Amino acid sequence: MPKIDISKAVVRMKGVYPHPHRSVTDGREKAALGNVAGLTQFGVNLTRLKPGAASALRHWHEREDEFIYVLEGELALIEDDGETVLGPGDCAGFKAGVSNGHQLVNKSQRDACYLEIGTRAPIERAHYPGIDLVMERDEQGTRFLRMSGEPYPQEL
Amino acid sequence: MPKIDISKAVVRMKGVYPHPHRSVTDGREKAALGNVAGLTQFGVNLTRLKPGAASALRHWHEREDEFIYVLEGELALIEDDGETVLGPGDCAGFKAGVSNGHQLVNKSQRDACYLEIGTRAPIERAHYPGIDLVMERDEQGTRFLRMSGEPYPQEL
Repeated sequence: MPKIDISKAVVRMKGVYPHPHRSVTDGREKAALGNVAGLTQFGVNLTRLKPGAASALRHWHEREDEFIYVLEGELALIEDDGETVLGPGDCAGFKAGVSNGHQLVNKSQRDACYLEIGTRAPIERAHYPGIDLVMERDEQGTRFLRMSGEPYPQEL
Repeated sequence: MPKIDISKAVVRMKGVYPHPHRSVTDGREKAALGNVAGLTQFGVNLTRLKPGAASALRHWHEREDEFIYVLEGELALIEDDGETVLGPGDCAGFKAGVSNGHQLVNKSQRDACYLEIGTRAPIERAHYPGIDLVMERDEQGTRFLRMSGEPYPQEL
């Protein structure tokens, strides 16, 4: 059945970044909608940010286009040039390879909710302006490195 | 600026199917949001259907994943197995290569609006169950054919 039963979506609440960056996404819930329908070419998440939570560290992707559409609440879109407030019906797109890091932060007093769509590239690298961190993904998996190429230590 | 100025999106109102199928999308308006941000890997349209309008002929794609999220109004999702009513917050996904044709029809008395996302495959073929029609796209462009491979005649 192509209609997606949202209650069957896997909801991810745990952050993925290494210490000391992980807490930036505390208060974020991602429901992976596209996976319920078996989509593989792009991901679709219904993401909720509690007050104070961020979508991610400020980042940009080398190979994956991204798009977000705000459904509820108010979000600050933070980029190189500053902040833009987004509300319901507002949307933004982040073309692969454009080195303007972006991040959504819920600076309001109530939850915000948005759809996020991103291509799934088998090989990818993400950059985090101002932070000594790089994400790499390839056939061996996903890993976080320092800009020197040194791996982050395993967390205790 | 990654925030998308929706007023700058190209709005397509004209149908693309050959006669006698073109009128199925009369009353459909597609605003190409993703293009405003320069996205190329997938398309994002904000699509409005007036009462009686359909999203497309009932179809399925060989190579492109599709996803829709209803923002406003009520839509009938028509597939091989029948109809499912979708309202705001409902969504559906159509995995590439699954031969279950789908179509959204606004059978209500007021406008309906949804986001549609689809991968952009350079080479593609779409099938239209029950209709003698095939769409082909490759480096030479997009064309509609009969199932025999014979091209549809140019419209007068």
